Amino acid sequence: MRGTMLYCSGDVRFEEVAAPKIMVPTDALVRISATCVCGSDLWPYRGLQKIEQPMPMGHEYCGIVEEVGSAVTVVKPGQFVIGSFFASDNTCPYCQAGYQTSCLQREFVGGAQSPLLRVPLADGTLVATGEVPPEEKIPDLLALSDVMGTGWFAAEAANVRPGATVAVVGDGAVGLLGVLSAKLMGAERIIAMSRHASRQKLAREFGATDIVEERGDEGVARIKDLTKGIGVDSVLECVGTQEAMMQAIRSTRPGGSVGYVGVPHGVELDGQALFFAHVRLHGGPAPVRRFLPELIEMVWDGKINPGRVFDLTLPLDQVAEGYRAMDERRAIKTLLRPNGEA
Amino acid sequence: MRGTMLYCSGDVRFEEVAAPKIMVPTDALVRISATCVCGSDLWPYRGLQKIEQPMPMGHEYCGIVEEVGSAVTVVKPGQFVIGSFFASDNTCPYCQAGYQTSCLQREFVGGAQSPLLRVPLADGTLVATGEVPPEEKIPDLLALSDVMGTGWFAAEAANVRPGATVAVVGDGAVGLLGVLSAKLMGAERIIAMSRHASRQKLAREFGATDIVEERGDEGVARIKDLTKGIGVDSVLECVGTQEAMMQAIRSTRPGGSVGYVGVPHGVELDGQALFFAHVRLHGGPAPVRRFLPELIEMVWDGKINPGRVFDLTLPLDQVAEGYRAMDERRAIKTLLRPNGEA
Repeated sequence: MRGTMLYCSGDVRFEEVAAPKIMVPTDALVRISATCVCGSDLWPYRGLQKIEQPMPMGHEYCGIVEEVGSAVTVVKPGQFVIGSFFASDNTCPYCQAGYQTSCLQREFVGGAQSPLLRVPLADGTLVATGEVPPEEKIPDLLALSDVMGTGWFAAEAANVRPGATVAVVGDGAVGLLGVLSAKLMGAERIIAMSRHASRQKLAREFGATDIVEERGDEGVARIKDLTKGIGVDSVLECVGTQEAMMQAIRSTRPGGSVGYVGVPHGVELDGQALFFAHVRLHGGPAPVRRFLPELIEMVWDGKINPGRVFDLTLPLDQVAEGYRAMDERRAIKTLLRPNGEA
Repeated sequence: MRGTMLYCSGDVRFEEVAAPKIMVPTDALVRISATCVCGSDLWPYRGLQKIEQPMPMGHEYCGIVEEVGSAVTVVKPGQFVIGSFFASDNTCPYCQAGYQTSCLQREFVGGAQSPLLRVPLADGTLVATGEVPPEEKIPDLLALSDVMGTGWFAAEAANVRPGATVAVVGDGAVGLLGVLSAKLMGAERIIAMSRHASRQKLAREFGATDIVEERGDEGVARIKDLTKGIGVDSVLECVGTQEAMMQAIRSTRPGGSVGYVGVPHGVELDGQALFFAHVRLHGGPAPVRRFLPELIEMVWDGKINPGRVFDLTLPLDQVAEGYRAMDERRAIKTLLRPNGEA
């Protein structure tokens, strides 16, 4: 089987790798219908995260169950399933509290940018759709594996309420789906921070009412201008840099909330500044598993089309171009379809 | 008039100062019935906070209104009032959102360790009791000016819910009243972190079910031991040091909450560690004004006795001994009564 490996900054290869196998009785093998490139894949791709040895890439997936281990009782071969980037047992106290990405047994699911994927803790991790979906639903369902669930968590962590004024920092797929999530949660005003025409357009289609192109101090000042000097009720931080985090905190009114889902890279928060900012802070790896049943239903009913963030579709063996297009911001998000090879 | 001034580390003086006057029409003058020494007064007293010039001390107060400015319409001379350490107009959007300590017009109330105090924005800041309280209620009412409201905010910011498991870091007056607040909010299990017998005793009387003497890594391990490895739902951080904050964060289960009210001194939070901790963080200067009406009612009805944290009462002119006793941890909190001098 061929799969996607990252060797070093800028060097993604689609090459021969060992085919995954059932390793423990709770595993399942999933034949990938579609996978994609994540904004977080760009951190190591850009050399901003150390690579010790060639890494199997990809953690977003949906597809057909091909085989299950002997302890898997809920998930069945032939089912169409979606799962999160962290496998979880869905029974431990952290899972029960809705934080499956902190599952006591959690295990990162890597290597999804390939035709076949091993998913640990299959019964806890995978959610099956009622039937095998039609082709046109695949991008929407794939988006639930990470970016839609992550945007949704950002909005939830930021306590978005009906009537709220919300700002979204970051115009990647997660930020854009954060806009959609805030809209679905009833936000009245949604300010998208974006400098890119195509992303601004999609943000508006997802529900953004205002666009702010400025960043840093100027971005904060612009948000304050738009809110009579008050700041917004909720900010979704979907980047993970110091600038983005500070922009989020400083744009929020006292008592308001920042939901942060961009994996922090070099972010340091000054305790005293945070104290006097009076904001609520919540975030982390989105517990996508919690939201999957509800989000699958919304996709199935045609209520949401999160797959619209995929503006480039490539056959899986052109994965390297998929990374390049996102790195150069020519694409918001690349969807990859296996070519039918085993 | 004599009042309390801090000259430098360890040097508190009760000395001749200018008597306060109505300076703007929204001011009131309050004849102090009782005041006290705050844990936060110990930061500059211990030299951990820079003193540029002699500082008038004290920000906790209750007493009788002596005079009001021409724009004060609600508060009347002769009323017994309690106010917060931050004056607030109680009408701006931040006040309306319940964050009066971030009021757009906020002004720090300093110099309360004296017989007479100027309180800015009197109508927004002061809350009058229905009648002048009996002597024995004075300590309980004084505690509402800061420490009880701050402990209450810590519990609220930590999302304490009925049935919750809660830990309280810090056994000063705020921590002890945080225990009481968590109990009033329905916490089932309250773990007080304390090494001092007298404070442990009061913590138990206020509702603590467990005491943990360990700190840092050992303290976290002990909390995990007590909660089957899970961590607690809510932690009240009532200290303000790096160790206390990290102890709080690391003792909380994913999806749980840290309410922090200790003014942070040298606290730095690593973004990535916070992200993977999956906790909610909220805190800041407690908006005591929001809670005053409800807390006054509880004191009046004899439902709570927050004044029990005062284990030393001195005449105001012995204020220096009041600081020493707290600094040396001989007293939890010192109450000061003016001696009748003008």
